[in-house]
Amino acid sequence: MSRKSKGLNAERDLVRAFWARGWAAIRSAGSGSSHYPSPDLLVGKEGRRLAIECKLTSDDKKYLSKEEIEQLRYFSQLFGAETWVAVKFSGLEWHFILPEDMVQTPRSYAIGKEQIQEKGISLEEFFTLHHACKKE
Amino acid sequence: MSRKSKGLNAERDLVRAFWARGWAAIRSAGSGSSHYPSPDLLVGKEGRRLAIECKLTSDDKKYLSKEEIEQLRYFSQLFGAETWVAVKFSGLEWHFILPEDMVQTPRSYAIGKEQIQEKGISLEEFFTLHHACKKE
Repeated sequence: MSRKSKGLNAERDLVRAFWARGWAAIRSAGSGSSHYPSPDLLVGKEGRRLAIECKLTSDDKKYLSKEEIEQLRYFSQLFGAETWVAVKFSGLEWHFILPEDMVQTPRSYAIGKEQIQEKGISLEEFFTLHHACKKE
Repeated sequence: MSRKSKGLNAERDLVRAFWARGWAAIRSAGSGSSHYPSPDLLVGKEGRRLAIECKLTSDDKKYLSKEEIEQLRYFSQLFGAETWVAVKFSGLEWHFILPEDMVQTPRSYAIGKEQIQEKGISLEEFFTLHHACKKE
């Protein structure tokens, strides 16, 4: 399977996971090729909305360009959504991290396989936390 | 140009029109073929979000199935967005209408070319009204 197909399948798995937990989720068309800022996924439930940039990697570290993050933040602010990055490292489930918790270099935002487990949250933890916060 | 391509181009024009007025807008991937409810467009600005089903037609009347409207409403409610139908009749610009302002038949929601100009609003009217409401 090509890298692009793998990425697409992984994104579709994520969409299914959100729907399975009662969230509305869509993948955006032409994300990456569009002239306009466009997150890979938009999900929403109970007054929360997330704009998510999804990355699948076989490396131990993932870099996103500053421009990617800026575009994601621009879209999120305008649309009215939280800004999240989701990374699927080999052998790990999807993990979510806020751009501000990534490591900033002059040209990029980076996050390692070990770091994301400390500073980010897994998909399951995300659902658990959301549920717990709504109960309070 | 195929009917599908025309529809796609018309949706892209709508996305461009929203961005040009300072709205964040995305087209959803695989709308229509997805297993999950998925509006054609999601747009947002200043605390408002719209889930929009888009229809292009050369007929004088457009029908949407009850299921299409129910799925659109389901998505909108869960995600947190207003539910809108946009129809582009030949010779008219895009017009927006709320499902409740369409004519209900046992199996569908219908709207005619004349009716949509009375009961709906054009894209320009939509922008003008939004701007006016935000000023109040």
